Amino acid sequence: MAEAAALVEITRGPFVEGTHRGHAVVCDARGSVLAAWGDPERITLPRSSVKILQAMPLVESGAADTAGLGTEQLALACASHNGAAIHTDRVAAWLDGLGLGEQDLRCGAQMPDDGPARQALRAAGQGPCQFHNNCSGKHAGFLTLNRHLGGDAQYVDPAHPVQRAVLDAFEGLTGETSPGFGIDGCSAPNFAASLRGIAAAMARIAGAETVLDGTRRDAAIRLREAMALHPLLIAGEGRACSELVASLGKGAVVKTGAEGVFIAILPEQGLGVALKIEDGATRASECALAALLVRLGVADPAHPMVEKRLNPHQLNRAATVTGEIRPTAAFYAGGAPL
Amino acid sequence: MAEAAALVEITRGPFVEGTHRGHAVVCDARGSVLAAWGDPERITLPRSSVKILQAMPLVESGAADTAGLGTEQLALACASHNGAAIHTDRVAAWLDGLGLGEQDLRCGAQMPDDGPARQALRAAGQGPCQFHNNCSGKHAGFLTLNRHLGGDAQYVDPAHPVQRAVLDAFEGLTGETSPGFGIDGCSAPNFAASLRGIAAAMARIAGAETVLDGTRRDAAIRLREAMALHPLLIAGEGRACSELVASLGKGAVVKTGAEGVFIAILPEQGLGVALKIEDGATRASECALAALLVRLGVADPAHPMVEKRLNPHQLNRAATVTGEIRPTAAFYAGGAPL
Repeated sequence: MAEAAALVEITRGPFVEGTHRGHAVVCDARGSVLAAWGDPERITLPRSSVKILQAMPLVESGAADTAGLGTEQLALACASHNGAAIHTDRVAAWLDGLGLGEQDLRCGAQMPDDGPARQALRAAGQGPCQFHNNCSGKHAGFLTLNRHLGGDAQYVDPAHPVQRAVLDAFEGLTGETSPGFGIDGCSAPNFAASLRGIAAAMARIAGAETVLDGTRRDAAIRLREAMALHPLLIAGEGRACSELVASLGKGAVVKTGAEGVFIAILPEQGLGVALKIEDGATRASECALAALLVRLGVADPAHPMVEKRLNPHQLNRAATVTGEIRPTAAFYAGGAPL
Repeated sequence: MAEAAALVEITRGPFVEGTHRGHAVVCDARGSVLAAWGDPERITLPRSSVKILQAMPLVESGAADTAGLGTEQLALACASHNGAAIHTDRVAAWLDGLGLGEQDLRCGAQMPDDGPARQALRAAGQGPCQFHNNCSGKHAGFLTLNRHLGGDAQYVDPAHPVQRAVLDAFEGLTGETSPGFGIDGCSAPNFAASLRGIAAAMARIAGAETVLDGTRRDAAIRLREAMALHPLLIAGEGRACSELVASLGKGAVVKTGAEGVFIAILPEQGLGVALKIEDGATRASECALAALLVRLGVADPAHPMVEKRLNPHQLNRAATVTGEIRPTAAFYAGGAPL
């Protein structure tokens, strides 16, 4: 088992002030490892990076079509959103269409990351509700699937038919028996897999047209394309997922997860990427993802939406540049193609 | 050169979800290393953890006495405060007493961490000013020293007499020639040293009565005791530095620095501690410091102010316990004495 590799470093003046270590894997659509850093077999809780896998049974089962879901709802089912009005209004309308409401969610309330939404709540003297939870779209998807499956209201129970269906899709696409789960921030079980398995799942979705069949193939393509079509719905203004998906084009999808996880689904290349920063830092997972996208020829390092993740300046309170965040030389290799 | 050691881990369900690596050193007042993890020779930017060293020339020079500074001002000179009224009012009054004002500071404006202060600014439709900068007390100290030294207004220039005096004290107490500096968040130079040198400086301050002489001895004792006397002034409500200093008693002082640094000054034991989390995470530096304080017999692991740093539960948005933060078994050794 390899140790975590130094992937990202923080400089200040002439010094490397800090280092972020982690693991990263690139797989092809057959699940073969094309490149890896650190330990590709590291058992990983992928957190929100695998919402597309958690949404698979929603589409595969026919529940999405029965409920008449469009691409916006499918994108929201795979989203970690900012709780802006563009997100919460759509989730509220979706549940309303099912005859359900905020009280049926089990994700918990969360103060929205979106500035205007926060200000609106403050101005109204209100706290956040469950619609503001970054996972409310995923949970609306769970509720839609639950309507189809006829389970009870506690759809986040790991033994509930909704979560059993999620585990089935997760294991099918990772090609692994999950060693277990942790409870996520939104109370849903988050199933573990090796980082290689997670990258392989994303690669199978990227290459769905050639490696998947039937309803699974259709579901993978529809969810992947819905995420690519609605960058702002999967995260929000200023967020890495939204800005990278919008700027990469070509159907490429990237998705973050808590505690330093990031995945990429690259249909044009038929590749999947998964990375995990050992210490959980988002500044490092974003930089490492950008570095891999450049090395895979998917991203232009000079594009402003890429450059601000790949090599952001660090500014102090007087707006003086004090240092930078950058991929380590060993990891980035000057942007050399993989 | 040893690699960073795994000091802290994050669990979720049955999995270790993440790991924080770092370096830690315990020195005695003679500067000898009693215990170390990772690389004690790691060149480190100590950031705000060494504000007590940056305040040494303020006292040693006689500037503090000329200006009539009391223990509150000395504590603020060593503080990274929350920008609460208890901090900003005192800094404003201090500068006013020197015939100076907010415009003379060079630290930059910063939104205060203190909730009531933020709400007051919002209610007034105002932005933060330089008094709110967590370093405004340090800068008031620089301005006080500058009045004494007669330097020009740009007291954060590394070549300015104020910063030359800081470097002299820093090198004297670390026992090292600094290899250089980075520019800190507040625009002052932050001089580098080995982590061992930083721990040795803190140990010399802890054991000032036996290992230092003259004005340096007096300055070390006065600053150390001022910090211990005013826990809320060195940080603020709910902050680790304030709560640990208040609960440890016996003159013990702890102080955090950005990017995962923490120091401790333990007069009763005549020991100094310095630690650096490689990835810069505060959750890990606080946990690692608590672990060392327990192993040094300074802190009770069952004390609520210690326990909440040593082994905090991780709660999700439904207040379910999802995991914990804890020192690694190798580092904590079950709390075994050092």
